[in-house]
Amino acid sequence: MIQHPAFAVEPWALHETTLELAHLAQSESLFTLANGHVGLRGNLDEGEPCGIPGTYLAGFYEQRPLPYAEAGYGYPEAGEVVVNATNGKLLRLLVEDEPFDVRYGTLIAHQRVLDLRAGVLRRDVEWASPTGRRVRISSTRLVCLSQRAVAAIHYEVEPLEGTLPIVVQSELVANESLPDEGGDPRAPSPPSDSLSAESSLAADARAVLVHSTQKSGLRLAAAMDHLLEAPARTEVDAESIDDIARVSFAADAGPGAPLSLVKFLAYGWSGERSVPALRDQAMAALASATHSGWQALLDEQRAYLERFWKHADVEVAGDEQLQQAVRVALFHILQAGARGEQRPIAAKGLTGPGYNGHTFWDTETFVLPVLTYTAPRAARDALGWRHRTLPAARQRARQLGLAGASFPWRTIAGSECSSYWPAGTAAFHVNADVADAVARYAAASDDSEFAREAGTELLVETARLWRSLGHLDAAGAFRIDGVTGPDEYSAVADNNVYTNLMAQRNLRAAADAAQADPATAAQLGVDAQELGVWRRLAEAVAIPYDNTLGVHPQSEGFTAHRRWDFHATAPEQYPLLLHFPYFDLYRKQVVKQADLVLAMHLRGDAFSDEQKARNFAYYEQLTVRDSSLSACTQAVLACELGHLELAYAYLREAALIDLEDLEHNTRDGLHIASLAGTWIGAVAGAGGMRDHHAQLSFAPRLPPPLERLSFRMLFRRQRLLVEVEPQQARYQLLEGRQLELIHHGEALTLCGQEAITRAIPPPPQRQAPTQPHGREPGAGVRAPIGGPGPGSQPRARSARRSPPAPSQSADPAGPDGANL
Amino acid sequence: MIQHPAFAVEPWALHETTLELAHLAQSESLFTLANGHVGLRGNLDEGEPCGIPGTYLAGFYEQRPLPYAEAGYGYPEAGEVVVNATNGKLLRLLVEDEPFDVRYGTLIAHQRVLDLRAGVLRRDVEWASPTGRRVRISSTRLVCLSQRAVAAIHYEVEPLEGTLPIVVQSELVANESLPDEGGDPRAPSPPSDSLSAESSLAADARAVLVHSTQKSGLRLAAAMDHLLEAPARTEVDAESIDDIARVSFAADAGPGAPLSLVKFLAYGWSGERSVPALRDQAMAALASATHSGWQALLDEQRAYLERFWKHADVEVAGDEQLQQAVRVALFHILQAGARGEQRPIAAKGLTGPGYNGHTFWDTETFVLPVLTYTAPRAARDALGWRHRTLPAARQRARQLGLAGASFPWRTIAGSECSSYWPAGTAAFHVNADVADAVARYAAASDDSEFAREAGTELLVETARLWRSLGHLDAAGAFRIDGVTGPDEYSAVADNNVYTNLMAQRNLRAAADAAQADPATAAQLGVDAQELGVWRRLAEAVAIPYDNTLGVHPQSEGFTAHRRWDFHATAPEQYPLLLHFPYFDLYRKQVVKQADLVLAMHLRGDAFSDEQKARNFAYYEQLTVRDSSLSACTQAVLACELGHLELAYAYLREAALIDLEDLEHNTRDGLHIASLAGTWIGAVAGAGGMRDHHAQLSFAPRLPPPLERLSFRMLFRRQRLLVEVEPQQARYQLLEGRQLELIHHGEALTLCGQEAITRAIPPPPQRQAPTQPHGREPGAGVRAPIGGPGPGSQPRARSARRSPPAPSQSADPAGPDGANL
Repeated sequence: MIQHPAFAVEPWALHETTLELAHLAQSESLFTLANGHVGLRGNLDEGEPCGIPGTYLAGFYEQRPLPYAEAGYGYPEAGEVVVNATNGKLLRLLVEDEPFDVRYGTLIAHQRVLDLRAGVLRRDVEWASPTGRRVRISSTRLVCLSQRAVAAIHYEVEPLEGTLPIVVQSELVANESLPDEGGDPRAPSPPSDSLSAESSLAADARAVLVHSTQKSGLRLAAAMDHLLEAPARTEVDAESIDDIARVSFAADAGPGAPLSLVKFLAYGWSGERSVPALRDQAMAALASATHSGWQALLDEQRAYLERFWKHADVEVAGDEQLQQAVRVALFHILQAGARGEQRPIAAKGLTGPGYNGHTFWDTETFVLPVLTYTAPRAARDALGWRHRTLPAARQRARQLGLAGASFPWRTIAGSECSSYWPAGTAAFHVNADVADAVARYAAASDDSEFAREAGTELLVETARLWRSLGHLDAAGAFRIDGVTGPDEYSAVADNNVYTNLMAQRNLRAAADAAQADPATAAQLGVDAQELGVWRRLAEAVAIPYDNTLGVHPQSEGFTAHRRWDFHATAPEQYPLLLHFPYFDLYRKQVVKQADLVLAMHLRGDAFSDEQKARNFAYYEQLTVRDSSLSACTQAVLACELGHLELAYAYLREAALIDLEDLEHNTRDGLHIASLAGTWIGAVAGAGGMRDHHAQLSFAPRLPPPLERLSFRMLFRRQRLLVEVEPQQARYQLLEGRQLELIHHGEALTLCGQEAITRAIPPPPQRQAPTQPHGREPGAGVRAPIGGPGPGSQPRARSARRSPPAPSQSADPAGPDGANL
Repeated sequence: MIQHPAFAVEPWALHETTLELAHLAQSESLFTLANGHVGLRGNLDEGEPCGIPGTYLAGFYEQRPLPYAEAGYGYPEAGEVVVNATNGKLLRLLVEDEPFDVRYGTLIAHQRVLDLRAGVLRRDVEWASPTGRRVRISSTRLVCLSQRAVAAIHYEVEPLEGTLPIVVQSELVANESLPDEGGDPRAPSPPSDSLSAESSLAADARAVLVHSTQKSGLRLAAAMDHLLEAPARTEVDAESIDDIARVSFAADAGPGAPLSLVKFLAYGWSGERSVPALRDQAMAALASATHSGWQALLDEQRAYLERFWKHADVEVAGDEQLQQAVRVALFHILQAGARGEQRPIAAKGLTGPGYNGHTFWDTETFVLPVLTYTAPRAARDALGWRHRTLPAARQRARQLGLAGASFPWRTIAGSECSSYWPAGTAAFHVNADVADAVARYAAASDDSEFAREAGTELLVETARLWRSLGHLDAAGAFRIDGVTGPDEYSAVADNNVYTNLMAQRNLRAAADAAQADPATAAQLGVDAQELGVWRRLAEAVAIPYDNTLGVHPQSEGFTAHRRWDFHATAPEQYPLLLHFPYFDLYRKQVVKQADLVLAMHLRGDAFSDEQKARNFAYYEQLTVRDSSLSACTQAVLACELGHLELAYAYLREAALIDLEDLEHNTRDGLHIASLAGTWIGAVAGAGGMRDHHAQLSFAPRLPPPLERLSFRMLFRRQRLLVEVEPQQARYQLLEGRQLELIHHGEALTLCGQEAITRAIPPPPQRQAPTQPHGREPGAGVRAPIGGPGPGSQPRARSARRSPPAPSQSADPAGPDGANL
């Protein structure tokens, strides 16, 4: 875990004050710069040491065969896996005759700062070579939000005691060797040597490499150019062969006379274009960047971010660490989606090779709600990508014997890449999640063009899927059997409440969209009869309920299952999936991640307060949060139900999942959806924001020790500011003319810039829910700054650390004693 | 399918009157000779043409890695796969200068006869070479039931028109090339080149090859010797290298002066013994065989079989084809199990590489009941093999977090080889099936030595498994959640009725055995408390019931699922698993094979007659029999419930599954369990034999057109003859002093050889059940000989052949129209 001293708590930056090699891979993920199109991991300029080298291009992947010892009908035969593209951020340095390497000589000072307003990664180093030559090295790296194909690095070396010969080698390197990952199924397994060299050119201070993948038929051009700032007498030499292009700068530099240069980088990739066309595309982007120049790129970057923060900023008082975390989260979400432009937003964004670079349902369910209200164009683009993959989703539905479209569980280019169907294909809720994101964006944007071009078709095709997937039983209930909900510790169950409620929303949204735009509906072949069927099926959706316990079973029969023996489970046996067979997880009451609780957030309109309270208490006892997609949702419901201490602990857990490496796999990339959960926990949790039935509502409740929370959001091209204090909330339109909203059940109308302030009713008093033994929130999270919180409870911490009594885990018959 | 004219219907033989190359692989399976230890497929003596070359040694296997695109905890990493061992049955023939090959020249006559009383495969050929040289070739092959390591072939060539130079090459060949199988997951995938040569010797007319496997650490010696009968002047030459040993016989033969020789073969294999030790073992077996001589081997074989048929024969009047089929079935079951001696009985016996040579639950559930009553020593040996694998089963249980022992779903040496856990590991019923076979053998044999040495431990360890696998719910019911029953078109469901009832039997049998032998129980650590728990859990077993429909759901929730749309399913879409995804099969009401119906057979004591009738009618509508393990069980229940026409159709289907290649995969080996089902269908079906609570009972009912059925069986060392006619049944002890039995509810006591005759009550009148569209029994089975039966119904036949209307299968939304 990244320890406290490494990152300083600052409101507008992620600041690493010293270099800790043990956490290098994690910091590489956190210091990633990306624009949704190109992503550069925060690797050191000089390439080594390195956790995982990473340069990612949205939608650029290789195919690999998916092996099965026992194959089955409909199993996908090929998977898609993100490729580590040509590395253009390499700047190797020779000081006198010693390569600059932080593992040698003396690292006198090393700081890295990710500046959330400037959108750059700054690095300042003071290093003494093994022979005692002291130099100052500084670099500033950016990936342009304004020019999507472009990145740039300002690099400067200054000897501190006398003039020294300095060589900087600026490189493009393809097919870097990658670390071998162990048996963790969540770890990446990228192909190495996946790029075939097609062209390499170098001249003056420029070079370009063109490569293609072997199976997926994609081609990539990476180009670089350089602007030398000083000193005047520098020798420049360029060369290139298949997998490497190098421009070398040799000069004598001294105190006050640094060697200083700007490296411009550009990428182009395509499944269609030829080698010359792609080469030209990259060179053109490069020409545009050099024409702009370094300062203009910096200015554009800052301006872009200023606009973003104006729409999106969240201010938190009372916990500086949380303030920092929520901004880091928003920054990385923007980086994942800003310029995606019809390419998918992966679970790890462009920050690492985790999950093979695949996108899952969490993009629609966690990331897009944030983008919808803060950068709606990015949300529209991501849904546009889904729309582009409709042909593949229709084909998959046909293969499965279903109507409409069936979106893949995990994919890069649109094909199903999940080789384990009970947790892949069976998780049909991904289709309702896409529809939910479409309906949310539609309601929040009034973007009728999107609806016409993509949105309505997405809703219609997914509604058709649900109709063919479910059936009416003898009693007239619309059942959806044998599917897997969000909780991956259950699978292939009947009438998963989350799935059924989201399918209901999907069917209604499709009917609404078709009714709102009959012309588009007619083009899609929707008639009044089909529309009526959707509405009737939505009305008839089966929602199982356990009358004895007075709770909703997550799926039918769930509450009759044996409870997981949490007391016999040792802390090191989490995540459970690495230590217990699926069969055992599936058949017991143990919840990996919010499932019914997520239904109570996204479909809160379908539950009474009393149901929510009982369900939440029940599922809290079972939820182990072995997924990063849980704490934020639990924070939201805990806020709504008045469990404010618990809400605060969950909010912190969601916020710090990568900053504190709570899942021990930040090295493979950031948990973009959990970062989105930080915003959700703040805005939907503490802010109580809901958007049921296209109606914005707020029920704010500030969990102590937070003193103030304010957030901005866009809704139908209007800009809203919400400020929450312990006793009152204030609503104001920063841009726009009129907005209807609800505050704790009271309808308000904001007009012009006039603010409305309302008191916050006291939270309901309910008994605090309990969590599974050792899985209380906050264990493993460092104490908040600004006051103690549940995260610092000694009980929770020791429970995660102390091993269980040997008799508990060693005797498998043990739990059984409880039977009789 | 093997056509009618190819096999003549004879009561004591399988007789192929002409050679049809298109059915060569099927006939190879049917003409296999084996003794449970060594199996030789019925390949032509000269090796080519060939469907699948096959020489199998019980328990001789290679390991291969099991690949997973997404691995999971507890997935087996290596599988076991049967090896095609050194082929010793090769006898190549050169006539003048032309190799004898049925594909060249003219095949004037070709007959093969598997003689069920002599236990030999005879072949008689008359062939004219391309240059017109006519020869008669005859061979007689046997695999000794008396000397388990030995096989022998009598081979004779006689030119029919003048003297000709004749060469016979007798060979041992290792690492034969095997045909490549397609994508059918049921098809074998044996490794080629899996044997490494370790030693080869040849001298005089003898040779021996020693090979070892590369990963499983097994070693194999194959040896041959020859006895030349005529003519006098024959040159003999022997040679050998790594993978081949050859003894050549060259002579001038003519009419009345054939070249005639006997080839003796012996095999030895081990995981422990050295090359010299194994070589000597094979040579010693060979010496014993040559010392006996050909005629003595023939005599021993016939005597062995005479004893078997005295205990086991089933006579059928009214359907000659069924008479033949039931004897062929018994013969092959004996061949699969006779000399297994602590090695597993594979699903295909030693007849082919299907299912990788694995053994499954069907050995215990279908094959061992037959052996228990006809060759009880073989049943005991097979259970002894299970007992030998207890250490692996205990280790597997620990890995899964369970107590006791968890037997593998599929295996050769005892390790779990199933890589798809929902249809493998989750099918825990295999453990109750083992226990059921133990309890049946114990009740039928009074073999207290077996109980002490193996039986009780098997019962105790499986009872412990169930205790840890299930749990008591709030209402006090003992639930077993998330398991897979026999029906492979459902998986991972709660409270599968078959599983729960068999677990109940297992728990009770363990308690009974422990109580009956307290000393053995004490050694196994069973105390009164544990025994009491088993009895209480057995009492509390949950048996779900659908009160609305008045039937037992196969598993909880099953009857609420959507019904499979059989009318939209084309005949060529069966078996469904090759044309539809598991997810869709699992979530709908469609049954691959008897599951609840099997429970009503094996645990018939747990159902009322009314329940049986309602359940049978319900599941008949859903059962497609995509498995060979279904028709026999349906025959049994149909008989019990008085659906005699239907029972007859199912009995024929079970009996003819391989003779008529109904599943189109007889090429990969015989369906040993379905062959056992022929006996079960006759004895438990028409004979109405049950053995609940260690009590033999009969409720015979002869389905027309059968006129008479008689069968013999062993029970507690007594030999019983039962003769069933339409109106009456006759019971007689052929050996033994006294036997209590029940005839249609009436208790009878047989004393000495005095027969008792009782009338058969008329069958209850019930409405005939219906089957899924196009899946009526008898479709695809040729008309019975001895009168028309349901198998000849034109409707059923045409239903299997005619494709559905295109609109039915092309529109996946189609079935959904039924919703509203």
